[in-house]
Parts: sequence; structure tokens; C-alpha cells
Amino acid sequence: MSDVFAVGVGQTEVGEHWDRSLRQLGAAAARAALADAGTDEVDALYVGNMLAGDLSGQHHLGPLIAEHAGLLGVEAIAVEAACGSGGAAFRTAYTAVASGLVGSALVVGVEKMTDRPGKEVTQGLATAADADFESQIGLSFVAINALLMRRYLHEHRLTRDDFAPFIVNAHANAVHNPNAMFRFPVTAAELARQPMVADPISVLDSSPVCDGAAAVLLCSAERARGLGGRAARVRACTVGTDTIALHDRRDPLELSAAVRSSRRAFEVAGVAPADIDLFEVHDAFSIMTVLALEAAGFAERGRAVALGASGAIARGGQLPLSTMGGLKARGHPVGATGVYQIVEVVLQLRGEAGENQVADAALGMAQNIGGSGATVVTTVLEAVR
Amino acid sequence: MSDVFAVGVGQTEVGEHWDRSLRQLGAAAARAALADAGTDEVDALYVGNMLAGDLSGQHHLGPLIAEHAGLLGVEAIAVEAACGSGGAAFRTAYTAVASGLVGSALVVGVEKMTDRPGKEVTQGLATAADADFESQIGLSFVAINALLMRRYLHEHRLTRDDFAPFIVNAHANAVHNPNAMFRFPVTAAELARQPMVADPISVLDSSPVCDGAAAVLLCSAERARGLGGRAARVRACTVGTDTIALHDRRDPLELSAAVRSSRRAFEVAGVAPADIDLFEVHDAFSIMTVLALEAAGFAERGRAVALGASGAIARGGQLPLSTMGGLKARGHPVGATGVYQIVEVVLQLRGEAGENQVADAALGMAQNIGGSGATVVTTVLEAVR
Repeated sequence: MSDVFAVGVGQTEVGEHWDRSLRQLGAAAARAALADAGTDEVDALYVGNMLAGDLSGQHHLGPLIAEHAGLLGVEAIAVEAACGSGGAAFRTAYTAVASGLVGSALVVGVEKMTDRPGKEVTQGLATAADADFESQIGLSFVAINALLMRRYLHEHRLTRDDFAPFIVNAHANAVHNPNAMFRFPVTAAELARQPMVADPISVLDSSPVCDGAAAVLLCSAERARGLGGRAARVRACTVGTDTIALHDRRDPLELSAAVRSSRRAFEVAGVAPADIDLFEVHDAFSIMTVLALEAAGFAERGRAVALGASGAIARGGQLPLSTMGGLKARGHPVGATGVYQIVEVVLQLRGEAGENQVADAALGMAQNIGGSGATVVTTVLEAVR
Repeated sequence: MSDVFAVGVGQTEVGEHWDRSLRQLGAAAARAALADAGTDEVDALYVGNMLAGDLSGQHHLGPLIAEHAGLLGVEAIAVEAACGSGGAAFRTAYTAVASGLVGSALVVGVEKMTDRPGKEVTQGLATAADADFESQIGLSFVAINALLMRRYLHEHRLTRDDFAPFIVNAHANAVHNPNAMFRFPVTAAELARQPMVADPISVLDSSPVCDGAAAVLLCSAERARGLGGRAARVRACTVGTDTIALHDRRDPLELSAAVRSSRRAFEVAGVAPADIDLFEVHDAFSIMTVLALEAAGFAERGRAVALGASGAIARGGQLPLSTMGGLKARGHPVGATGVYQIVEVVLQLRGEAGENQVADAALGMAQNIGGSGATVVTTVLEAVR
């Protein structure tokens, strides 16, 4: 296989886009990534999306986004792995470029959760869970995460206040991200007063329902050379899976797909957790942040909250998390999220993260999770200097 | 890139499976393909599916099918391209094996259209069309095909009776396929009496609503050698796209994505249309058969019906079509269809097609179409002797 480089990134603002449709959002991110790379040469397009069929009555996003991005006729395929769809689309594009069958591949993650003619969003998100054994009995997606969080609090004798540092950090970082949905800080005291969605998950524990699109252009070493600078090298991109239903897991507090995917990513990249300069973690709910940190080996079991409290997760810390606001505060347009994470890692590695720049960022990691851990995609990127 | 081989195939019967769920169908086909290959070694799983979110409230089929096929933990991703989802999943698996990043990849196409708690099937199928400009104004999927067929009849001064040979041929072949849904012959006289669904498309012009799953195990040359015989070599697998909406096409009677995909497939495989020994065509409606034959260069424009009338499309003819019944009579469980087509080509190339065996089949082609031609996946396979 050949080396693969991220040579262009693009994104739309995350938010409620009442004036922009699914195809317009996807096309805007695609065009931004191509403009950033300074090329129109695209051999294949992979679209990450979860809910367009459910919420917008629109499948078949490959050709739809291709046409509207000005890439009519190009190979174009949609990829789905629930909230891990963006990461899965990135993995698919990475594989395609590595094969040499395509010289460049554009990844677009897009989701439109407002202004929908179809299902309710809660009903749509529940399709990430097991339809026959979870959602059919009324277990919503936030309820599944609440079960996990309650178990974690019980097992490690913690309170929900112990999760506050992750949320405070994400909001603090979003303040300086012009594409973030929640550009305001929150304090631990404010968090303690939030109304519950599914106890112990409160409103501000949850990532928002929103719209957005992000894109990354990948290409081979040969093509990357032709494009001049500002590339990041993909050191690893790996996928692990687990059962969808929580009750089928031996230990619900171990995200075994994340263990598998992270270990394999470190192995392929030839690096250790301590080498990672920043981590775009899948903080859809803070329980996911905590479980992901432990699964990847950044913290011992039950100790991730201590990492949060230590200050290590802030910009100047040992492992900056959610550096542009994360799912929590940048927002979580579900099928687009995995691509936003990678866009943000690339910006960090290029030194273009503005006020949120992590000094000397050389190695960044993004991890995108589908469902409550049934799909985990881990990507490690390296600065090219 | 390395050569890629299809080393195992599996399928369930196509029909109304009131006693088997989505996951059970997918797992059954997966297990059958692994048993056929004589291995359990799978590095990645790609699932082709269109409607599980809409009809069954279930997304996230990668890990779901992985778990139920006994492949817990494996890399697993779902791929969607409307009715071309199966072919797109095959293309994705092919790319993955070609990259060397995975040594073997299992493709499973699965669709469950009966016994659904969700949307009506007609509403689900309409998500293949343009939601904002076609389905939202009430254009169903069969109506879109009826518009195309009416235009074709007008332009070439034909009648719907001229399409009969394709349907008669498909049904004749399905009689001997134990996995086909419609194992009965039809005559041109019977076809002329059928009630209309969307004039000029009658009930028997249409492929049926049904359930089914099919699977193919792909692997590298190295792994294929370890598995002994009965492999087929993938000579080409290409994807072309077009606008989703018919009104955006310069010429609605030219399937430009099929032109692109077919030409490229012939070029990559280094063969010409005349070299193809059998063609599994996307005969969801007979107008699609006709347009696909012309787009691939098997017939001049307006002359595909003459090819049908000539007898060339029968088993002993120059270009046997739909040799196991096609979408028309084997059935069209939409997201699974592209994989069924490839399974059937492989069986032909291995000389295992029973009563429907095409003598000395050395080179077979399958073409899977999403929507009314917005996605076209063309696969050319070669017998290994």
C-alpha cells in the first residue's frame, strides 16, 4: 500500500441551518476542502451520513453530493456506521487511496437534523441501537448512555459533578471556534443546576441536535507532492466493532471496540498513547469521553475523571481534548462528526487552529464512535513539516 | 494493488421471509459464504443495505451482521447506494483487499422488505430518488421508470410488447433456480394481459418486493492459494454516477453512469463487450435492461429490444441475460441485489449453475444500478481454471 495524505479540509458552521439543505451543506464543505487543497482532481467521493433517509426522505447521497459539489459522474458511495459514519467514510476513502485504485478521494460527512419532513430526531437516533432488543422497548439513545453513566458512577463511587471538567473544557475551547455551535463557556456550578434529560445525563451533558458538513481530501504521496504544502500524513485508521446491544456485552464499562481499534491504531502507527499531542474524543455524552479515554489507554479504569480534574485535558495540558469544542460544544451533526474531528486534527497539525492551537502539535488522534460503542474508528495523523 | 479473488459465495432464498429477521438473513448468507470458502478468516465486513433504517428502524448494520455472523469485533461498515448498495459494498470490499490493508473481506447484501414496523415500502424506495424535486411531488420509483419507458417507446416507435422477451427469459431461468422467488414461466400473451402499475409498466414488468441476503468472500491471491480451488478472479469493478433527478440529465435515455462504468470496466479488464459470456443485468424494470444494454455497448441505441427478440439473451445465445432469473424473477431485495448478481456470476464461472449453466462460461459481468441510473457498479469476473 502507498502512504496517504490529507491535503485539504473544509467545514460549514455547525448549527441550525434553516436556510441550507442537506445537499447544500455537503457541497459547501466539499468545495471548501477542494479550495483548501487547490485542486479539483477527485477520483472518488465517500459520504458519511446516518439520518438523511429517516429525517429527509433522501438516500443515495453519493451521487447527490457529487453532483452538487461539481463532481458529476465521479465514483461516489455513501457509508453508514451510525454516529461513526464520518469516521467510517474516512476509513473507506483511506483504504481506496491506499489501494492505488484511486489517486484521490474526497470524504464528506454531512447531517441535517433540523427542518426535517421525516421521523423525529430521537426516533432517528434510536436506529443506532438494537431495533429488536433496545429501541423497540422504548430505550432512547440518551437513555442508553444514562444507563452506562449510572453504572460507572456506581462502580467507581463518583457523582455526576466529577464529569464537569470535560464539559467545561469543551465549552471553553468552542468559544474560539467560529464553526462551533455553542460559543459560550460554562462553569461547574452551572452544570450542577442543569435539568435532566435522562438521569444522570443533563442538558449540558448532551451534545446538541444540529446540522453541519465537513470534508477532507485524501491523496497518494505522488499527488500530494504536486499540490505543494500543508498536508498531514495518515499514520493509521482502524475500525473495531462490538455488539450493538449493551446487554450482549460481557462488561458494559469496557468499550471493547475502542480497545481493539485504539490498540491497532497505535500498533500500525508505531506510537504509544503518550506520543499523542491532542485527542479529538467522541464526547457525545461525557460518559463516552471517560470510557474512550480508558479504552485507549490514556487512563486506568475508573481514573479518567481524575485526568479530567488534573487539567491535563486543557490546551496547555498533557493530553488536550476536544480542542475545537468537541461534539459537546462544536456540535454533533451525527454522520458528519467523524470528519469534523479529522478536519480539526489537521488544522492543529498545520498550526492553523487559531486561539485553540496546541503548541508544537505533531501527532493527533481522532476517535469516532457509532452507537454506544458498537463501531469505533481511530485515526492517527502526523504533521508534515 | 494486488489481485482479488472471490473464494466463497452464499445466499438465502429470495422471498417473503415472515419467519426470519434482517440479522438472521444477513448472518445466514455470511455463514454460507464462509462455509463455501472453507474458512472463518475475515478481516473486514462490508454490508450493502438500503432500507433497514426506513423499514426496520435499524441502522448500523456493520456490527449487527458481524456479531450475528460470528465475526464479533471485526472491522464492519455499511454501504449505501440505493438499489446499487450491494454492488457498492462489493466495490468497497474489492478496494480494501486490493489495498493490502485487509487480507480478506466479506460482502453481505441484505434487505428485509416484508414484516416492517416502519415506512411503507413505496415510500422507502422513493428515497432513492431526489427528495426535494422528485419524491416530494409524489413521483414514486415505479413512476420514474414509467416515464423513462414511455419516452423510450415514443422515441423508438415501439410498444410495451416489444419488452416481453426479457421478462419471458428471466422467468424461464428462474424456474430452475431454487433461490428464486418466481419459479414459474410466463408467456408474452400473459404479459400483455397484466394490470398496469404505472402505465406502461405492468405488474410483471416490475421486480417484486421481497427479502433476501447474499454474500461473497473476497481475498488476496496469497490467501486464495491457501484455500484450494473454486475461486473466480475479479477483473474489474467500477462505479459511475449521474444526477439523481431525471430532469437534470441532458438525455434521459442515455444512462451516462452506465456508459462510464461499463467503459471503464472493459478498459480495466482489457476486454470488449463481445468477450462477455453472460450478463447479470439490473432488470428491476425492463426499461432498465434495455437502457443498460445500450449503455454498455451490447446494442446500438434503440436496438436492445431487437437483441431481446433475436434469442441472443437465452442460455444458449450470444449474451445470456439474467441467467438465474434476474431481479425480475429471482427477486430484488434491493440492497442485496448487487451481491446476488455476483454470486450468480461466480456460480456460472465455477460451472455450478445447474440447469441454467452457460456452457464454457469464462467471463461474466454483473451490473448493479442505484436509482434510475444515478449509481452504476459494473463488475467483471473471470473463471480460474
